[in-house]
This record gives sequence, C-alpha cells and structure tokens, in this order.
Amino acid sequence: MPRVLVLGTGLIGTSTALALQQGDGYDVLLHDLLPAHVDEAARRGAGRLWDGIEHVDLALVAVPPGRTAAALAALQSSDVASTYTHVASYQSQVQAEIEALSADVSAVVGGHPLAGRETAGPASASAELFVGRPWAICPSAASTHSAVQDVRDLAEAVGAEPVVLGPADHDRAVALLSHLPQVAASALAALLADQDDIAPELSGPGLVDTTRLAASSPQLWTEILQGNAREVAPVVRGLAELLTHLAQDLDTLSSDGRQGGSTSEAAIARVSELLVRGNAGRARVPVKRGLSDAGFAAVSVDVDDRPGQLANLLLAAAAAEVNVEDVRVDHVPGRPTGTIALVVAADRASHLVRALAAADWRVRQDAR
Amino acid sequence: MPRVLVLGTGLIGTSTALALQQGDGYDVLLHDLLPAHVDEAARRGAGRLWDGIEHVDLALVAVPPGRTAAALAALQSSDVASTYTHVASYQSQVQAEIEALSADVSAVVGGHPLAGRETAGPASASAELFVGRPWAICPSAASTHSAVQDVRDLAEAVGAEPVVLGPADHDRAVALLSHLPQVAASALAALLADQDDIAPELSGPGLVDTTRLAASSPQLWTEILQGNAREVAPVVRGLAELLTHLAQDLDTLSSDGRQGGSTSEAAIARVSELLVRGNAGRARVPVKRGLSDAGFAAVSVDVDDRPGQLANLLLAAAAAEVNVEDVRVDHVPGRPTGTIALVVAADRASHLVRALAAADWRVRQDAR
Repeated sequence: MPRVLVLGTGLIGTSTALALQQGDGYDVLLHDLLPAHVDEAARRGAGRLWDGIEHVDLALVAVPPGRTAAALAALQSSDVASTYTHVASYQSQVQAEIEALSADVSAVVGGHPLAGRETAGPASASAELFVGRPWAICPSAASTHSAVQDVRDLAEAVGAEPVVLGPADHDRAVALLSHLPQVAASALAALLADQDDIAPELSGPGLVDTTRLAASSPQLWTEILQGNAREVAPVVRGLAELLTHLAQDLDTLSSDGRQGGSTSEAAIARVSELLVRGNAGRARVPVKRGLSDAGFAAVSVDVDDRPGQLANLLLAAAAAEVNVEDVRVDHVPGRPTGTIALVVAADRASHLVRALAAADWRVRQDAR
Repeated sequence: MPRVLVLGTGLIGTSTALALQQGDGYDVLLHDLLPAHVDEAARRGAGRLWDGIEHVDLALVAVPPGRTAAALAALQSSDVASTYTHVASYQSQVQAEIEALSADVSAVVGGHPLAGRETAGPASASAELFVGRPWAICPSAASTHSAVQDVRDLAEAVGAEPVVLGPADHDRAVALLSHLPQVAASALAALLADQDDIAPELSGPGLVDTTRLAASSPQLWTEILQGNAREVAPVVRGLAELLTHLAQDLDTLSSDGRQGGSTSEAAIARVSELLVRGNAGRARVPVKRGLSDAGFAAVSVDVDDRPGQLANLLLAAAAAEVNVEDVRVDHVPGRPTGTIALVVAADRASHLVRALAAADWRVRQDAR
C-alpha cells in the first residue's frame, strides 16, 4: 500500500487525501502549519497526522504557490519521500525555484489539478473534487520515469484525467484559459467599482456571468499572476490591443458612422469580424464532456418562484427520461416568477418540450 | 380599452403583445414584414393582424435598432397612432434619426426593455419575459407628459419596472453594464479562436462563464455597438488601458519579480489593487432582487449524474422549506458524477446543510 504525505490541508490537499482514502489503496499522512486545518482534515477522515519523520513514497505539497518550492525543498532536505510533487497553478517558476534550492530534482514532478471552488479550507474539501477533471503533470527534463508514474497513479487514484505536458506548455495554456479570463473579469468589475454615478439597476444576467470570477481572492491571484507573469503578460497585452483597436473603430463610427463612407465601412467590418471571431472562440470552449454549446439545446420554462417549483420541473424532466445537463435560472428581481432554462442534449430537446407541455408547463424550445 | 400596434413580431414585440393580452386590458394589433413571423405571433394568441390603416393609441416599434427610426417615421407620416415608442438598445442615435425624419417628435418617447434571451423570433417569445425586469423610458425634451405616461402604462402592463431617464444617461449606463461585457467576452473568445495550438482541455467553468456572451449574434451587436459608439468607445478604451497597464506590470514581474526591489513591489501592489477593485465592482452587481453575492450562500452537493438526481435534491430542499434561488452545475467531463451548488439566502444555508445531511446527501456549505 503506497504511503502518501499531504503537506497543506486546505481545499486541494484535503480533497486529495479524502479521495485517496476512499480508494482504499493508499495510506495517507497529513501535515499543516495550521493545527486547526490538519485537525479538521483528520476529523473528516482524510488521514492520520504525520510525525515529521515517517518516510513516505510520495510527498504532495499543497500550499500556496509562492511557498511551494521552499516547502518542497525542506521536505527533500530531510529525505522524507521517494517522489515529490505539488499542485501549483503555474509550473516553470516553481520548478526554477526548486532547482535553485534542491541538489537533485530527478525525484520532483510538478502537478496542477484543474479543479477548485470559489471557497477554500478543509471544510470545503470533497473526495469528488477531481473526478473527471484534468490533472496536469509537468515533468522537467530531469524527472525520472518512475517519478512521473507515481504522480500519474495519484491523479488516477483520485478520479482525475492525467494530462502530461511540459511546464512551459502548461503555463502558456493556463495563461490563456484560466489567468486571462480572471484578469478580464477583474478589470471589467474594477471599471464598475469606479462608476459611482451609474446605478446598476439596468444590468442583466450577462454582467453577472462575465464578472463572476472577479469575486476571487486577490491574495491568491496576485501570487498566480506574479508566478506566471511571463506567459500572462503577452495574452493580456493581446486582449488590450484588440480592445484598443475596437475603441478606435468605435471613435470612427461615432464621428461619421451615419454618413457612411469607406472609412466607416471598414470600421464596421472590423467590429463585425471581432464578434464573428468571438463566436468561433466560444464554439471551442468545452461546456461539458468535451462538447461545445452546439451539442446542447435549452428548453425554457416559466415558473413561479417558490419552494418546490424547480424540483417539480426537474421531476417532470426525469419522468420524461431526459438528463438535465445544466440549469440556468433567469432572475426576476422583486417578483415571484422566473424563467428556468434546462440545458439538455440537443437530440432530446423536442421530446422534453412535448412532455413538459403535456404536463401543462409553460415551456418553449429556444431556437438556436 | 387602449389599442396598441406592435410593429415587428420578433422576440421582444411578440413577448410584449402576449403580455398585454394576458392583462386583458389592451387590444393588440400585429404587423411584420415577415408574414411567417406575424402569423406565428397571431397563432400564439399575441393579437390580431393590422390592416395598415386602423388607428391606435400607441405604436410600439420593435424592429432591429438600425431600422427603428425609419419604421417609426413611416408610421408617423401615416398618422397611425397618438403615441409612438420603440425598444432600441441605444437611444440618442435613434432619437436623432427620428428628429431628422419627423416634423413633430412631441408624441415620440424612446424605450428599452432590459430583457432578452440568447435566442430570437416569435417562437422564443414569452408573456413573462419582462416581469420584474427594468424597462427604460427615455423621453426627449420635446416629449409630452401624456406620451411618457402611455409608455409607462405599457411597461407596467407587461410586468416590467419603468425606469425613466434621459437618452444620454441611458446610453452611458448600458455602455458600461451591457455593451462592455459583450465586448470583453467577444474579445476574450476571439483570442481563443486564434490559438489553434492550445488544446482547450485544461479549461474550466470560469472560461465557460466569462465567454458565454460571445455566442451572441454578430449582426445585432454590430448594430448596437455602432449605434452607441460614442458611449461605448470610452469604456472600451478604459478597459484596454487597465489591461495595458497590467501587462506592463506583469512584464516588470517576469523580468525581475523574484529579485524583489521597489519597482517590482510597486508592480505587485498595482496588480493586487486591480483585483481588490474587481472584488468591489463585483459586489455592486445585483445578482437577484437587487442583492449582490453577499446576500446569498452556496451549498454544494456531490451527486451522480443521472436522470432524477437533481430533481430529488431540489425536492429535498423544498421539503426543508428552503427556496433555491439559483443552481450551478459543475460539469464533470466524461464521468457520471458532478457537484451541484444550490444558491440560497445566506440565512437559510446552515438549515439546508443540516436537512440535506440528515437525508444522506453528500453536502457541505461553502465558506465565503
């Protein structure tokens, strides 16, 4: 039975430990600088406390990214484990820091589970957190094959899908797919914060979705953006340039757009082109199970906003043997009614509409 | 019984007509250049066909914004109605166009219902579309008091909340609250479209939320951005400048961030400040009923992803007499399991956690 030390019993560390315990094939040891955290993790059944000496097969360092290298090197200097890995959101910088502190990095393999919640701490942990999610595994040139295999085994044991790629490729991908959306949401929301004279009463669900990430922890994200600055800077600049050019085109249109002319026609064409490319980019975003929006259809139902209505609706969908993949509730400020969109596989939508209509729900299928 | 002509039986026109018919106090006439649209609207009970002559109390022009002024002026030249309004997403430009075409604008009052769907056409229309949503009413200096009152009555009759403000104030508010989020989502997604070599497999729910608006119609949004270019240009430039400065700070950090020094300390402080301002802006976004995130708490439950599980969970919430305000499904690509977050009033969350745990759900309350 492999023995794993989880150093850092926050959300990620405790979730990993819980998932390993469920599988029954791992002996899990826990350690944290915060006694309250490690006690809570142990109380939840995540493992037993580490005495600071016992040797393990694999050490997983699950502390904030800025402290990862130092913590990992400290464990290594005591020769605690045969293989070392971590869960930092960026890889190249952490690897460089480890190489500066460690005499031998052949036993070190970086890792990054792409799962998380808006919340932190062992109380939010879940054995299911990683199920079906990617777990990036980022060996350096020095990593041994068996160390990589140890980390792959760990990722599979918690239900994740291992994705092996180099630290630089990882950092470039997450800069675009994770760090840039965070920055865009924060910058958009920051502009709102400055506009005291505009009442937000004219806002709608689009603003709610687009700024959701802006609620993230500034402390954690300052660390992440700093640690992956080399890859994030160019994509942030790329977004800034797209927007600068758009602002120039809009300037052209606000001064002479209604008079026509080839200058304004060219500006209109560029604005349209950006929106069309946006459609294409959105179509590449995997909404679920690797499928984009195109694989799904939304069925909309008007309901009264009171306890049980949503449950009754989903029961009706279940009775029709349709699996609801996602639910979107359109908020209706101040009124006891709303619209619920049930997202289902595209080829099940018509069947669901007929079944719900037969049961007297106010239902319609959204045209695409 | 007031008589209303709805010109343009797309999503907004047909939804307005359906809502007016429900109230039983309006006689609704319908017209559209597309016979299939007006026939479908009539078949759905939205009103009776207009003969092109019959005089009405109020004419509502619900055509794309770029054609609004011409359509409204054409009706006015035939003296069809006592009061004229429209539903354009921008106001000043449409008003200027109307003033260029019309001899007397005292009977004209602009309007803009802030409701909509990702879909279009009379088949997507709903009598409930406007319930509890704001309906901006934008009189010009020339509008008569009674014309404003007619439009206010219409907005209230369909269940909307009238918000009276000048065309310029309207355009400035929607530029920030609606047009800028659209632009940010489209630009972000456009960058993704260009990166063929990055597999989207490392992406997560944050990217899905942030790019959702990028699926919107390029044709409609080109019209809207063009029509409100004067107000959108400065906020797009403001966002571009925030991002340009951030990219510069990230450049500083990628070259000397780990060596410390006052230059990099100042850059870190500015990055952190942007994220903190993002938190503040997000807190101003009304998520539901005028409440921001702070009024709600999320209770997370791990479930198997099969028909009926979501319904059973919501039934359990209903049995506990907790009203679920929103549902978020965390997608688990390729695996038959998932996490569902039930968003409930903050003061009901602990009660719900206890009730669900007692019924053997794998539940936890997300710390904030």
